[in-house]
Amino acid sequence: MFRSLRRVQQYNCNLLALQRLSVNSKRLICTSRMASSEYRIERDTFGELKVPADKYYGPQTVRSTMNFKIGGPSERMPIQVIKAFGILKKAAAEVNKEFGLNPKIADAIIQAADEVSAGKLDDHFPLVVWQTGSGTQSNMNVNEVISNRAIEILGGKLGSKDPVHPNDHVNKSQSSNDTFPTAMHIAAATEVTQVLLPGLQTLHDALAAKAEEFKDIIKIGRTHTQDAVPLSLGQEFSGYVQQVKYSIERVKAAMPRVYELAAGGTAVGTGLNTRIGFAEKVASTVASLTGLPFVTAPNKFEALAAHDALVELSGALNTVAVSMMKIANDIRFLGSGPRSGLGELILPENEPGSSIMPGKVNPTQCEAMTMVAAQVMGNHVAVTIGGSNGHFELNVFKPMMIKNVLNSAQLLGDASVSFSNNCVVGIEANTERINKLMNESLMLVTALNPHIGYDKAATIAKMAHKKGSTLKAIAVELGYLTEEQFEQWVKPGDMLGPK
Amino acid sequence: MFRSLRRVQQYNCNLLALQRLSVNSKRLICTSRMASSEYRIERDTFGELKVPADKYYGPQTVRSTMNFKIGGPSERMPIQVIKAFGILKKAAAEVNKEFGLNPKIADAIIQAADEVSAGKLDDHFPLVVWQTGSGTQSNMNVNEVISNRAIEILGGKLGSKDPVHPNDHVNKSQSSNDTFPTAMHIAAATEVTQVLLPGLQTLHDALAAKAEEFKDIIKIGRTHTQDAVPLSLGQEFSGYVQQVKYSIERVKAAMPRVYELAAGGTAVGTGLNTRIGFAEKVASTVASLTGLPFVTAPNKFEALAAHDALVELSGALNTVAVSMMKIANDIRFLGSGPRSGLGELILPENEPGSSIMPGKVNPTQCEAMTMVAAQVMGNHVAVTIGGSNGHFELNVFKPMMIKNVLNSAQLLGDASVSFSNNCVVGIEANTERINKLMNESLMLVTALNPHIGYDKAATIAKMAHKKGSTLKAIAVELGYLTEEQFEQWVKPGDMLGPK
Amino acid sequence: MFRSLRRVQQYNCNLLALQRLSVNSKRLICTSRMASSEYRIERDTFGELKVPADKYYGPQTVRSTMNFKIGGPSERMPIQVIKAFGILKKAAAEVNKEFGLNPKIADAIIQAADEVSAGKLDDHFPLVVWQTGSGTQSNMNVNEVISNRAIEILGGKLGSKDPVHPNDHVNKSQSSNDTFPTAMHIAAATEVTQVLLPGLQTLHDALAAKAEEFKDIIKIGRTHTQDAVPLSLGQEFSGYVQQVKYSIERVKAAMPRVYELAAGGTAVGTGLNTRIGFAEKVASTVASLTGLPFVTAPNKFEALAAHDALVELSGALNTVAVSMMKIANDIRFLGSGPRSGLGELILPENEPGSSIMPGKVNPTQCEAMTMVAAQVMGNHVAVTIGGSNGHFELNVFKPMMIKNVLNSAQLLGDASVSFSNNCVVGIEANTERINKLMNESLMLVTALNPHIGYDKAATIAKMAHKKGSTLKAIAVELGYLTEEQFEQWVKPGDMLGPK
Amino acid sequence: MFRSLRRVQQYNCNLLALQRLSVNSKRLICTSRMASSEYRIERDTFGELKVPADKYYGPQTVRSTMNFKIGGPSERMPIQVIKAFGILKKAAAEVNKEFGLNPKIADAIIQAADEVSAGKLDDHFPLVVWQTGSGTQSNMNVNEVISNRAIEILGGKLGSKDPVHPNDHVNKSQSSNDTFPTAMHIAAATEVTQVLLPGLQTLHDALAAKAEEFKDIIKIGRTHTQDAVPLSLGQEFSGYVQQVKYSIERVKAAMPRVYELAAGGTAVGTGLNTRIGFAEKVASTVASLTGLPFVTAPNKFEALAAHDALVELSGALNTVAVSMMKIANDIRFLGSGPRSGLGELILPENEPGSSIMPGKVNPTQCEAMTMVAAQVMGNHVAVTIGGSNGHFELNVFKPMMIKNVLNSAQLLGDASVSFSNNCVVGIEANTERINKLMNESLMLVTALNPHIGYDKAATIAKMAHKKGSTLKAIAVELGYLTEEQFEQWVKPGDMLGPK
Repeated sequence: MFRSLRRVQQYNCNLLALQRLSVNSKRLICTSRMASSEYRIERDTFGELKVPADKYYGPQTVRSTMNFKIGGPSERMPIQVIKAFGILKKAAAEVNKEFGLNPKIADAIIQAADEVSAGKLDDHFPLVVWQTGSGTQSNMNVNEVISNRAIEILGGKLGSKDPVHPNDHVNKSQSSNDTFPTAMHIAAATEVTQVLLPGLQTLHDALAAKAEEFKDIIKIGRTHTQDAVPLSLGQEFSGYVQQVKYSIERVKAAMPRVYELAAGGTAVGTGLNTRIGFAEKVASTVASLTGLPFVTAPNKFEALAAHDALVELSGALNTVAVSMMKIANDIRFLGSGPRSGLGELILPENEPGSSIMPGKVNPTQCEAMTMVAAQVMGNHVAVTIGGSNGHFELNVFKPMMIKNVLNSAQLLGDASVSFSNNCVVGIEANTERINKLMNESLMLVTALNPHIGYDKAATIAKMAHKKGSTLKAIAVELGYLTEEQFEQWVKPGDMLGPK
Repeated sequence: MFRSLRRVQQYNCNLLALQRLSVNSKRLICTSRMASSEYRIERDTFGELKVPADKYYGPQTVRSTMNFKIGGPSERMPIQVIKAFGILKKAAAEVNKEFGLNPKIADAIIQAADEVSAGKLDDHFPLVVWQTGSGTQSNMNVNEVISNRAIEILGGKLGSKDPVHPNDHVNKSQSSNDTFPTAMHIAAATEVTQVLLPGLQTLHDALAAKAEEFKDIIKIGRTHTQDAVPLSLGQEFSGYVQQVKYSIERVKAAMPRVYELAAGGTAVGTGLNTRIGFAEKVASTVASLTGLPFVTAPNKFEALAAHDALVELSGALNTVAVSMMKIANDIRFLGSGPRSGLGELILPENEPGSSIMPGKVNPTQCEAMTMVAAQVMGNHVAVTIGGSNGHFELNVFKPMMIKNVLNSAQLLGDASVSFSNNCVVGIEANTERINKLMNESLMLVTALNPHIGYDKAATIAKMAHKKGSTLKAIAVELGYLTEEQFEQWVKPGDMLGPK
Repeated sequence: MFRSLRRVQQYNCNLLALQRLSVNSKRLICTSRMASSEYRIERDTFGELKVPADKYYGPQTVRSTMNFKIGGPSERMPIQVIKAFGILKKAAAEVNKEFGLNPKIADAIIQAADEVSAGKLDDHFPLVVWQTGSGTQSNMNVNEVISNRAIEILGGKLGSKDPVHPNDHVNKSQSSNDTFPTAMHIAAATEVTQVLLPGLQTLHDALAAKAEEFKDIIKIGRTHTQDAVPLSLGQEFSGYVQQVKYSIERVKAAMPRVYELAAGGTAVGTGLNTRIGFAEKVASTVASLTGLPFVTAPNKFEALAAHDALVELSGALNTVAVSMMKIANDIRFLGSGPRSGLGELILPENEPGSSIMPGKVNPTQCEAMTMVAAQVMGNHVAVTIGGSNGHFELNVFKPMMIKNVLNSAQLLGDASVSFSNNCVVGIEANTERINKLMNESLMLVTALNPHIGYDKAATIAKMAHKKGSTLKAIAVELGYLTEEQFEQWVKPGDMLGPK
Repeated sequence: MFRSLRRVQQYNCNLLALQRLSVNSKRLICTSRMASSEYRIERDTFGELKVPADKYYGPQTVRSTMNFKIGGPSERMPIQVIKAFGILKKAAAEVNKEFGLNPKIADAIIQAADEVSAGKLDDHFPLVVWQTGSGTQSNMNVNEVISNRAIEILGGKLGSKDPVHPNDHVNKSQSSNDTFPTAMHIAAATEVTQVLLPGLQTLHDALAAKAEEFKDIIKIGRTHTQDAVPLSLGQEFSGYVQQVKYSIERVKAAMPRVYELAAGGTAVGTGLNTRIGFAEKVASTVASLTGLPFVTAPNKFEALAAHDALVELSGALNTVAVSMMKIANDIRFLGSGPRSGLGELILPENEPGSSIMPGKVNPTQCEAMTMVAAQVMGNHVAVTIGGSNGHFELNVFKPMMIKNVLNSAQLLGDASVSFSNNCVVGIEANTERINKLMNESLMLVTALNPHIGYDKAATIAKMAHKKGSTLKAIAVELGYLTEEQFEQWVKPGDMLGPK
């Protein structure tokens, strides 16, 4: 019963209401099995099928919804892939036109493809990720939608394949095996450049501002979670800044291979049924449509059969996640308290923290960020396993791989912005607490090493610890140095750099 | 621009249209930032906030949508968790009533909680997974929705907290820290028992039927992917049956600890602000509401601070995924061809396989299953990392952990059904091909070991391989045995078991 | 140059010195390419080979050392697998004798196998894990060593295969494909029962003693790393005790399938060239030799082609690692300081902590444990990937899988003992510090909820925090209650359980 | 009993025999608990300890062997790290000398450090990886060995710390916190440049030679493991070549950050107790000693507290592993048979493949490579988890991280060489089989798309499949084209590239 309710919610669809919705909203509710009262009949090589009358997609899309009832709407092919397909199909049509495709047909395809990449037809893409591993069904979904929309533009009859055939025209010079990887790369590059990198830059700048703001606050260092020698709070934050700086560099370093497009390889990488120059022209058209430096892949066999470039990118995202986990963990521990934690930082209070403990405030932005980091590390393993299991001329873990890469990029990008705006920019130093902890530290004794040697310095620290006394008192008591020497040698402000 | 379009689609919401939709559909389109023209003012301990007039949720939910813009609708708290909360809040209200809560208030809470678990209020739960790691915001979302809906039932004013207060009444004797883990366990147990286990049973039965159907078909075995001694096709499938049988056992073996509920531990596990017996009564009420054998956790400190039970369950799902990868890989390779592969199995043809290669048919169900397997393995790493990073009295990776566990359970369950119905039940043996390959095999020579020893048998096989001849011809030529002996000793049908 | 030095060290072997060493020591230094001046000639089906005169192994072992120069001595087949093979070969010889194998040969094999399992011949097993994925070369290494040693016992000539043939006699009724998995299970079960479970029990008992010792010490709880309501230090430790208790249960729950042995399946699971009853008799003989409840696997096809049982066991070890990470992390943070951390626990000081900071002491046992935990999580992924990639009748990731499972079991077992003895048993509570932190906590306000409601309680806490004042002063100042009521209602000692 | 035997073997040590061994061999047998009859007394800040008289190490090393009995000799700190320490200590001594360290002391340190990096003192480094997470104990092990060896050189008494003190002189201007990461980077860079990259280059060249050799062999392509359109065998191998080429590029792309050294940061990154210029001079000295482009890390706080550079490198190795898995899988499947597999490749026969099936030959090099790949993927997760769990000024998963990175680099490098030499270079094409499969393929029909359209082409292929007939016969029978047209349009040799 519980289960069946969930299913109804996932797959049902109030069509009347839907027709009153804007196209942008529809995709989110419309699902695989429609209860529409009106259908048209379309056919593919397997026979005839009923297709909802108000949908541009065709029989192969319908077949996929029938054969792959795995997960609900949240498991849909990422919309970024659909939009990337819109760009690719436009580019292919332009190049095909150049190579002789009927301009009327080509222009209609281009117009329809524009609508796809603009998000105007989102509710016509109901397929889930868990379909054929080549993404063929999503490629055909795109071909069907563009074909029918182009037919409509040209005054034809939906489902007639005339005058715009989904395979012969929209998919001309293409195969799922080269277009899906191309769409994967376009989608990944777009998400990285438009969401992830700006998000990381925001975080970098927020942390850098704090590093500058805190540069004169001297605090105790902690190694092994234990008291250590001092550093400035600005120095501590500078480490985070460096991690984010390198995060950006790492992601960028992975991009050259993501900018390589498989388009033009067709079925197995040979480029069968394309014209010489097609691959290069498509890549340069995609580059000019997106403003990103896409090029044609130098070896199409590798580009179809392996997705090492996405594994590599995922590896970079994994390293970013590692950095984020460290930074967010530090900030929550340094901000722990308010009275019984380390308490060196005061974090912004954004919302009530507890449903039972009145007045509690929690480092929730750190928690969202660390959860994102764990997810990205898990996604990376899924991408790795998928990437390693290609066979012969084709890797068939494509939809799963791109889903995870896009998810990681988006989550890291979004979380970086949220963490920056709702936490980092509002962090304040609790200087009173910082000073108190720093001055009590036994590890200031380290400054004595060059003067009295490690062993005597250790004796001082251990005795001060045991007696609950100060370093100075013990040092003098032991006769290792004078009070004046202590004050001259043990100055926290002198301990922040080489001499 | 590309990016901003996506955002609009994700967060925008045509409210007029929405109001005409059934409640079940709304959740899927309604998003965090509404453009509603009508608001009411509510307040929490942080101050006042505008809340959409048509929503039952309150200010803490709104705050979360403002502070956690991470991912879109596909990143929502799984609806299974929300429904589990409905069950829990009902159970808690019943027990609180028994312990003295005003019956009018309790009954209104119970009615509202029933609506939550029945899925009638799904569109009032807009929060994403990437929020506070305790799930406090989703617990408060539930408290707010139930409180306001109960107020409405009792004729009060939404947002007034009177006569039903979200904390003092709906959350009475509870904390997010014990309710969220409780909802996690209820949701996981429900998904496992209603989706995963039935799905695995379906697959088990489909494979077992094939093992029986194929029991008399003798085929070549393959080890190291190389020709080996024969077995029956039914024996080969019996191995898959055993894997699925054990998959079911493994998942069941992990459930006892999932059936332990944290409820009654409140903030840190001590049960502060509960009554003696509350924990036990809530667990038994949840058990009777769900029909599942829930009990109260014997140690609430462990139940809040660690989610080892979910890591353990995820480990079982990971092992199931390993089994699925093996089975689906075998079936696709055994069905490879139609002319240049192994070709021993004929898989059902469900859809056109290629957008460029006419007539191509692919093992798409195997591909969906293996992609699911890879995803589950990745999810498991995310769960592992989250589970290992709890601190002191609380693990704050809760929403991420349950999202991944539910995703794994659902995907494996759904994919098992899809794979069974659309692939396994329709598999046919290509007996002509099977016989041909089996009879040519050089490894039949193994049957000679007990008669002439390993070394002579090896000489026969190697020479037959080298000369492209038959084992019998070479065996006789070498004088190791007679033709009659060969025919008596090398009978594939005698090679399927011990003597 | 740097590289070549390493190689020399790895592969070189001073034979003269070696001959003066006890056999136990030799294995560790003797490596794949010996510079021995004395050889004997042996032959396998590929031809003749020089074998070191002082070694019992034969040509197939030598071939493997020539063909698999991957990693050095630390990458050897785990000695536990070799010893398990000794047990298995003895059991097989006993059963073969019962079925007619010449008793003189059988008894010599049994004697030699006993020497293998007793560790007397360790230096005769030079092969690395990175060989054939079935472990055939290690099975043949065992067959060769036992055969030659048995020949020696019977007065024959090493390498003559007479009167004891490595394949026809030592490997009789066996294949690598069933013996290697059998040895894997014997080795895993032995490591689990002799190292891991006793180690976990030691840790359990040490933590349980502390939970009892600390049961009356009331301390502040921490959720989200932030101050929360109190609990006793004993309660906090009881959560760890529960985690270890469940760790033990989880590992035990995985064992039934590890106790299933593949022996008797031979090449592909059919049991070709065995006698009816062989499988069952071998399993029961192994059971009586080891004292562990081994049985014959109910489905040999599954037992050869999949190693789900080891993936499952590894999943249990992964969950144990998750528990260990939590416990060790908590203890190091609670012991942080000595002056600027949380400082509630005083950890044993075992060694100087720093080469530069005199007197520093670090939670090194926690660090070893958490490193082990991370390693086990990584090992688990390797096992998962290997387990998922079996094909047809055989999984060929066997040596890699067992290496990782054994490593995880040993590290967790050893680290549990080290952590118990060198850290847990010596932990002291810093009661002065604990009391101070607990009494200052603002979250004691939670006890007021049932009396004045969540909202008023929150007002008190927030104002006390803002003003740096006490809860009582603010509560009275706000007129929410009297001083007497505060003292009656807010008693930490009353906050440790339900009422 | 079983257990205790293992322990004896691991920890025992025949000292008399040892003294006759070359130093290179000793490390491998000598273990943590020696039964030496002769000791000297040394002391550290914790007191006195017995140290084996024949060892250069001192009390802190002995303490570590007592406190960390975790794993056996195979769990030792990788020898590459020890040698890297030798280089670093030499460089530091040279720079310290420049800054005023007594030249006699400095020179003795330099001489001793040279012996460490040359591998002459390997048996003086008994510590395991599972120690303090900063590697302090291994740093002190190095300091103690160099100090005592330098004392010996200068005629002093072992253990006297005079005239060369392990902390004040050998460790001068250093901390474990900056030296251990420095040694990690030196060791990783050395392993990568001396083992991994040459190994990958060997594999690249071997595959490239085959791609050239096979360039005119036309074969059937396979997508989804199913028959697809043709390509040349050379093209297929060119994909592998590209993967290895990019593997090399990926590893190199990760190196710039590995070439950054932490030395000079001392305890927390500030460089306390160093002189201005020390960090830069040490880095440039290390660079000139190793011939690798090391530089000083621009931010020492990041370099101590995070090891993102190693996570990044491990990510590159993970991607390499993914490529290796694909290549080795393809080659074993293409070489499957000899009679019942795909059989397109003939792999070198290196050893007997089976202990029971006479004459069997297996793709064992592929199996070793794929096991290595799985291990590297698991290692990567361990590195990721360790890398993410640093706190404040120090990551304390250092020894575990470097162990896994070095293991991955070495295994991939060694396996690449083994796979190249023992498999790739000997691969032959089975042209007879290749031709047969290619000519029967139904997917040649794809060449008809541009002439008769996708739908008609599909009809031909499906009918030919159903009737077991040829494409040409059916095409003509259906009247779609003439025999001449078929022969003109369907030429495999014309299908290998764009037109």
